[in-house]
Amino acid sequence: MIKGVRFSGIASGIKATGLDVGLVSFDEAVPFAALYTANKVKAAHILYNERRTGGKVRALLVNSGCANACTGEDGIGDLATIASEVAGRLHIREEEVLFASTGVIGKRLPVDAVVAGLPGLVARLSEERLEDFARAIMTTDTYPKIARAATSGPEGCSVEGVAKGAGMINPLLATMLAFVFTDCPLGPLRLARLLPALSRETFGRISVDGDTSTNDTVMVFSTGRSGAHAGTGLLKNALGRVMRELALLIVRDGEGATKVIHLIVRGARQKRVAEAIARRIAGSPLVKTAFFGCDPNWGRVIAAAGDASVPLDPEKVEIAIQGEVLAREGIEVPFSEEKLKGLMAGREIELVVDLHDGRASYDMYTTDLTYDYIKINASYRS
Amino acid sequence: MIKGVRFSGIASGIKATGLDVGLVSFDEAVPFAALYTANKVKAAHILYNERRTGGKVRALLVNSGCANACTGEDGIGDLATIASEVAGRLHIREEEVLFASTGVIGKRLPVDAVVAGLPGLVARLSEERLEDFARAIMTTDTYPKIARAATSGPEGCSVEGVAKGAGMINPLLATMLAFVFTDCPLGPLRLARLLPALSRETFGRISVDGDTSTNDTVMVFSTGRSGAHAGTGLLKNALGRVMRELALLIVRDGEGATKVIHLIVRGARQKRVAEAIARRIAGSPLVKTAFFGCDPNWGRVIAAAGDASVPLDPEKVEIAIQGEVLAREGIEVPFSEEKLKGLMAGREIELVVDLHDGRASYDMYTTDLTYDYIKINASYRS
Repeated sequence: MIKGVRFSGIASGIKATGLDVGLVSFDEAVPFAALYTANKVKAAHILYNERRTGGKVRALLVNSGCANACTGEDGIGDLATIASEVAGRLHIREEEVLFASTGVIGKRLPVDAVVAGLPGLVARLSEERLEDFARAIMTTDTYPKIARAATSGPEGCSVEGVAKGAGMINPLLATMLAFVFTDCPLGPLRLARLLPALSRETFGRISVDGDTSTNDTVMVFSTGRSGAHAGTGLLKNALGRVMRELALLIVRDGEGATKVIHLIVRGARQKRVAEAIARRIAGSPLVKTAFFGCDPNWGRVIAAAGDASVPLDPEKVEIAIQGEVLAREGIEVPFSEEKLKGLMAGREIELVVDLHDGRASYDMYTTDLTYDYIKINASYRS
Repeated sequence: MIKGVRFSGIASGIKATGLDVGLVSFDEAVPFAALYTANKVKAAHILYNERRTGGKVRALLVNSGCANACTGEDGIGDLATIASEVAGRLHIREEEVLFASTGVIGKRLPVDAVVAGLPGLVARLSEERLEDFARAIMTTDTYPKIARAATSGPEGCSVEGVAKGAGMINPLLATMLAFVFTDCPLGPLRLARLLPALSRETFGRISVDGDTSTNDTVMVFSTGRSGAHAGTGLLKNALGRVMRELALLIVRDGEGATKVIHLIVRGARQKRVAEAIARRIAGSPLVKTAFFGCDPNWGRVIAAAGDASVPLDPEKVEIAIQGEVLAREGIEVPFSEEKLKGLMAGREIELVVDLHDGRASYDMYTTDLTYDYIKINASYRS
C-alpha cells in the first residue's frame, strides 16, 4: 500500500459485464513519467495527456472496453469533458487529470455513462481498493495483475504496480497499460530518466502476438511520502522487480496461451544480433504452434533464426529445450521424442539458442499459439 | 504440355502415405535459372545445386516429407549419392541432375528408399504425368498446383508450371517450391534476368504466416523446342500469368485458410511505403483472426498500418472491405455490421487501405488465421 494513493473501480456499462472504469486519486499533486506506444496511430488518451500543460497530477482515470483510438478530435474532446467532471468531483484542477483507455479501436467513449459513474467512483476511493482498479482495466485478461516490492534497509520505500494485457502484445511497448506507484521521493526528471530503460528491460521483453497497439501506456508516479531517499540502485531494483513481475503476469495471461516460453539467445557477437534473433523466433507462428503441440520441432526454431535479417552461421547453432540438447553445430543430435514431449508439457518452458559466435545474449518471454487465441480474436468485438 | 519434358511421381515411403518423390526428365539438356530462399539457413538441395558445376541440366528430382535441411555435409552427400544413381538410370551426367526438397527440417533423407524408387520413377516418365509430379511434391497442400499459359500469335510458345505451398508462406520467397517450363528458346542469361522480377511480382506478393522457410525454390527451364522467338513482352506476360496463378493456388491453399484476402494499399507517397504497410497488415494475427470471424474490425487494420515503421498520417486513412467504406480520415463512418458480416463470409475478400497521401500502391494476397492452422502446425511432425 502506498499512502496517499486511493483506488476504485466501477461498472459503468461500457462493457456488457464487469468493472470497466477505474480511478486513481492522489491526496497531493505528484510528479510522474509516462511512456506511450511506438505505433503511429495513437489513442485519444495519449494525444490528450501529451497536450496537457502543467507538471504534477492528482488523478488518473482508466477505462476498458473502448480504446478511444481513431476517434479524432471528438475523442480528445470527450476526455476534456470527463476531465472537467472529475476535477469538479475531486476539487482539483482539470489539468491535473490523466487518462488511459483499452479496448476496441474506432468507437467513441460513452461519455454520459462514464460521467454518471463518477459519483460512485469517487465515493469508493480507498487506499485498499487497488484490486478493484486492477479489475476495471481488464479486457481479455483472465486475472488482475498487481505486483509489489520494497527497497531494503531501515528507510525503505515501497513500489506497487498494476497492469493489464493480454493480446496485441508486442514489446516496445506491449498492448498493455501499466501504472506503477512509489512513495520514494523522485522528481519528474529522475522518473523520466528511469522509465525508458526499466521499461525496455521488462515490458520490452515480452511478446504474445507481435502486434503493437494504439494504446500502450506505462506510467510511474511518486508520492514522495516515504521521506527516505533510497539510492538509485536500490530503487531501480525495486521498480524493476515490480515491472518485471507485471510483465510476466501479462505474458502468462497471453490470449489463449497454455505456456510461457523463456527464450534465451546467447553466444552472439552483439546484443542486437541476439535480440533480433530472439524477436524473430518469438514472433514465429510455426514455433509457437509447435510449442502448443509439445513438439520439439527445433527445425522451425533454426529456420526462424535464419530469417532474422542479421548474420547467422547455421553450422554453429546449438538448440536446447528444458536443458535437453536437440541440435548441435546446426545438426540434430539423438534425443528421445517421448522425453521431450514430457518436458514440454509444463507451463513454463526454457528454450536456449546458442549461436556459439560470441558472448552477447538476450532473453525474452513469449507464449504458445493456440486454438483459444483464434477463438478470442475471431470474436473479440461481439 | 511442353514437348520433351517428362514427369513422374512415386511413393517411396518417406511419407506414411501418398506420392513423395517426383522426377522431371528433359530429352535434351536445357538451360535454367533458379531463385532460392533468403533464409540464412539453407536446405541441402540449395547448397548442392549451387555447388554444381556446368550449365544445362537433364533431370530434376524433388521429394516431399523431408526438407533435408540442417543435415550438414551428410545431407549434401546424400544428394550426391542419389544424383549418381539418377544419372546412371537416365544415361546422363551426374552434374546434369538438380534437386529440391520440402518437409520436416533436421531429418536426413532415407537415401535407400529414394534409390529403390528410381527404377519405378524412370519407368513411369511421361509428358502427360505432370499431375503425378505435382502430387509427389505436396506436404500439407490439399490439392496439386498446376498452371498453364501460351503466348498468342502464330508462332506461339507454351508455359507450364507446378508448385507446392502451403505453410511457412512468406514471400521473398514463400515456403514453396515452384517449377516452370517453357518451350520458348531462352538462354540462361535471359532466364536469370527474367526470373527475379517475375518472382517478386508473383510469389513475392503472397503471405500465409510470415515464416520464410529453409527450402524455398523457384526454377524456370527452357526447352527451346517451339523454335519461335516470342517477344520479351509476350513471354514475360505468359510466364507471369503462370507464376501468378501458381501463387494464387498456393495462397488459396494456405494452411487452414478459409479465405483469401486481397489487400490493396494505395495513395502512398512511395511504393516502398505502400509495400511496408501491406506486409505489416498481412502479417498481423489480429487482422487475420478478425477476417476468420467475419468481423469488420478496421481498428486492427489501422493499428497494424501504424506499426509498419514507415510514415503514416492516421487522419488521412480510408479503409474499405468489399467496397464498403468503414473509416474515412482515420475515423469510423456508419456502416451496417450485418451487411459487412455478409460481405466477409465469402472466400475472397478485398481490403483496401487508402493512405490519401500520394499515388503509389502495392497489393498482395494473404489468408485468414484459423483453428485449422493451429491444428495442422501443432501436430505437423507426427
